[in-house]
Amino acid sequence: MHLYSKEDTIVALATPAGVGALGVVRLSGRHAVEIAQKFCKKKIAGKDSLLFFAKLAYPDTENILDEAMVSVYFAPRSFTGEDIVEFCCHGSSFILKELLRLILEAGARLAQAGEFTQRAFLNGRMDLAQAEGVADLIASDSSASHRLAMTQMRGGFSDKIKQMREDLIRLAALLELELDFAEEDVEFANRQELYTQNTQLAYAIEQLIGSYKLGNVMKHGFPVAIVGKPNAGKSTLLNALLDEDRAIVSSIAGTTRDTIEEQKNIGGIRFRFIDTAGLRETEDVIEKLGIERTLKKIQEAQLILYLFDMQDFSLEDLEEAKIQLEAYQIPYYFVGNKTDLLSEDSLKTWANIPQLMSISAQNKADIKALEAMLLTHIDQTPDHESQIILSNARHLSCLQNTLKALHTVRNTLDARLSTELIASDLREAVYHLGEIVGEITNNDLLDFIFSKFCIGK
Amino acid sequence: MHLYSKEDTIVALATPAGVGALGVVRLSGRHAVEIAQKFCKKKIAGKDSLLFFAKLAYPDTENILDEAMVSVYFAPRSFTGEDIVEFCCHGSSFILKELLRLILEAGARLAQAGEFTQRAFLNGRMDLAQAEGVADLIASDSSASHRLAMTQMRGGFSDKIKQMREDLIRLAALLELELDFAEEDVEFANRQELYTQNTQLAYAIEQLIGSYKLGNVMKHGFPVAIVGKPNAGKSTLLNALLDEDRAIVSSIAGTTRDTIEEQKNIGGIRFRFIDTAGLRETEDVIEKLGIERTLKKIQEAQLILYLFDMQDFSLEDLEEAKIQLEAYQIPYYFVGNKTDLLSEDSLKTWANIPQLMSISAQNKADIKALEAMLLTHIDQTPDHESQIILSNARHLSCLQNTLKALHTVRNTLDARLSTELIASDLREAVYHLGEIVGEITNNDLLDFIFSKFCIGK
Repeated sequence: MHLYSKEDTIVALATPAGVGALGVVRLSGRHAVEIAQKFCKKKIAGKDSLLFFAKLAYPDTENILDEAMVSVYFAPRSFTGEDIVEFCCHGSSFILKELLRLILEAGARLAQAGEFTQRAFLNGRMDLAQAEGVADLIASDSSASHRLAMTQMRGGFSDKIKQMREDLIRLAALLELELDFAEEDVEFANRQELYTQNTQLAYAIEQLIGSYKLGNVMKHGFPVAIVGKPNAGKSTLLNALLDEDRAIVSSIAGTTRDTIEEQKNIGGIRFRFIDTAGLRETEDVIEKLGIERTLKKIQEAQLILYLFDMQDFSLEDLEEAKIQLEAYQIPYYFVGNKTDLLSEDSLKTWANIPQLMSISAQNKADIKALEAMLLTHIDQTPDHESQIILSNARHLSCLQNTLKALHTVRNTLDARLSTELIASDLREAVYHLGEIVGEITNNDLLDFIFSKFCIGK
Repeated sequence: MHLYSKEDTIVALATPAGVGALGVVRLSGRHAVEIAQKFCKKKIAGKDSLLFFAKLAYPDTENILDEAMVSVYFAPRSFTGEDIVEFCCHGSSFILKELLRLILEAGARLAQAGEFTQRAFLNGRMDLAQAEGVADLIASDSSASHRLAMTQMRGGFSDKIKQMREDLIRLAALLELELDFAEEDVEFANRQELYTQNTQLAYAIEQLIGSYKLGNVMKHGFPVAIVGKPNAGKSTLLNALLDEDRAIVSSIAGTTRDTIEEQKNIGGIRFRFIDTAGLRETEDVIEKLGIERTLKKIQEAQLILYLFDMQDFSLEDLEEAKIQLEAYQIPYYFVGNKTDLLSEDSLKTWANIPQLMSISAQNKADIKALEAMLLTHIDQTPDHESQIILSNARHLSCLQNTLKALHTVRNTLDARLSTELIASDLREAVYHLGEIVGEITNNDLLDFIFSKFCIGK
């Protein structure tokens, strides 16, 4: 039983609060048209969607609240699958509040966060992964996160999951059939074929799970730690990288004093640059604690840029740094700074060293080359233009559970154990795949998913 | 010559920035449909307004930016009188920014503040006073300011001004005719009738000018100063008045330490309560400065509530306060506080004193009666439900200039001066009335008016 009835007609402001030319109030449910008709001075009738200009008046009066564009979508051909009326009003907070108040008085109730999309899901207008894609789409802030969310919302991801699930259901059905005829000891499902298909599916799911790291990067940004000794030019590099995006940067709160994290969109991917305090040997207890924190922060990075001042750095220093860096088990690049202050001869010292590039952070020289290198690093992961990429932690968890069940199936097959056991594990795999697209669901899960939406969606 | 060409196709985000379910991008101009067609995967054609669901893709690709509801309004039957396309997108800042960028690249330019409404005016879809009503409507934040703006936007105010202007033009035309036949010494315009009509018009304009004080109150709120000795209970009264609106109150910035101003919507009228520091005789130079500032603040009020503690206040104190209050030349009421602490007998002392009411701010007793009294005070001004009320400072100035011209006409008539002079003054009156509705205008004025709009309107 849902806390909030699906039978209610729900209403919410669908546009952000604040000053704007327009504000949209959205009404959905079986009484949407009837309620709208109480304010709307034009007769709403028809089967196809409507768009018209109308006066909205206080009920039973000629007291005009607003002149608005009204859109009407009739069930089932609407976003929610129910009748929807949208009032596109003048962006006055007074008008929007009054309209909401009047609609509530007329019998609607305020929508919960994500309740419109939840109804779209419950009415079969989209599956659960697609619904989650809607929220991701709204939250998207780079072309990479946008592309992921769009694929998910449009069903590309769901199609792949559903195909896998159908394959599993077909296998499971054959096994169930065997169980029905258990006394006759027949094998409808060829065990070798079952083994092969199971392995193929497990491989496909492993691939998807493997794409999560990239998906997470595309969704939340790619963390790059900038490390190096004090005065290597780390802050100058950060400034050079951020350049024209300075204003956006200054609005990011929660930066700590010891490690500064700032973001930049490079080639459609969001990079999160973590500027760390210079690391050095120290006996000071407090400084040690600070360095510990920095080291922990570095662990969260997926790439390290080790910046050094080429003027006072030797090849021996480089070897020593390499040993330190290897300990992190995170990919790293060396970045030699201050080319502007170096002679041709000195520059030659640093040529041909692998995983090293030279820049001048001060003069913003070769910063573009550094950015290109960062993008190339990400592109070394599988081709993500065409591939389906996992980006949702809930889906990851479902796929991991599916994979676990498939591994058990394989072990059971290896051990030539009973059909019942295999069938049971296959059923579990089907179940977990079903959770992703919402074939299998429960109210707690739905409440959890949709509570992360914004009101009005 | 306008700084910004009317020939351009303009685009803007019409909804507030921030997180919401929807965001609307509005495109207007002769190339609106052509530009929209570059992204919109459905063919836009027709004469009547359209509403349809469509994929928006990056031009010449299948790379989907969003799935949106698209509204199309064809010239001249649109808000601006031009072709308009509105994209109702998912409320992702990335999508909205990308769509704006793509539309700009396709040849539109960003709209200036109020430019859509300015085009509506220039294309004859509304007059200037109506256009100003649109901005007032968006800014409205109480039912009084909303009602004023709605009347103005819907043309009620303009109709009145236009009627006056037509009357003046008819009179002026007769005089112009006389001038054409000047040598024949005929009188087409009966001087007595001219005098009467001139007087009637001047009276009507005086009425309108007189309504400005109320209009200004309805638009910007009614300022009430709460004065009294320290510990009379002024802050407690303010809290009692604000009650459930506390949250809104706390968001108002710019309150000074010596005088606190807070707002409350009572019966659809916004009241601005000014809580003043207790006034007392002092020799302290700094305190004197503070009190001076308080006194100045009181001058801005349109009503004074003089609050006193009935426990330690005598009828003589009341007389003394009365003398002080009369000096302000602002209407005032006495409010006796702390009824909860007074005996029946003591209460009788204060009965039957005119312009005095008793409350208990602490117990919130009789606060509703106090509010009713405030509303009654405002309602003593002419019936503003049916009346046209002036609320715009620019209109006030135009009407004052009109009135001045009409007075000159009367004086010229009195002095039996030449027809040329009367005609010239009438022409001036016609001119100033024309400024209000925009029959007479200039680019500086338009720029000034529309620059106060928000972008996207």
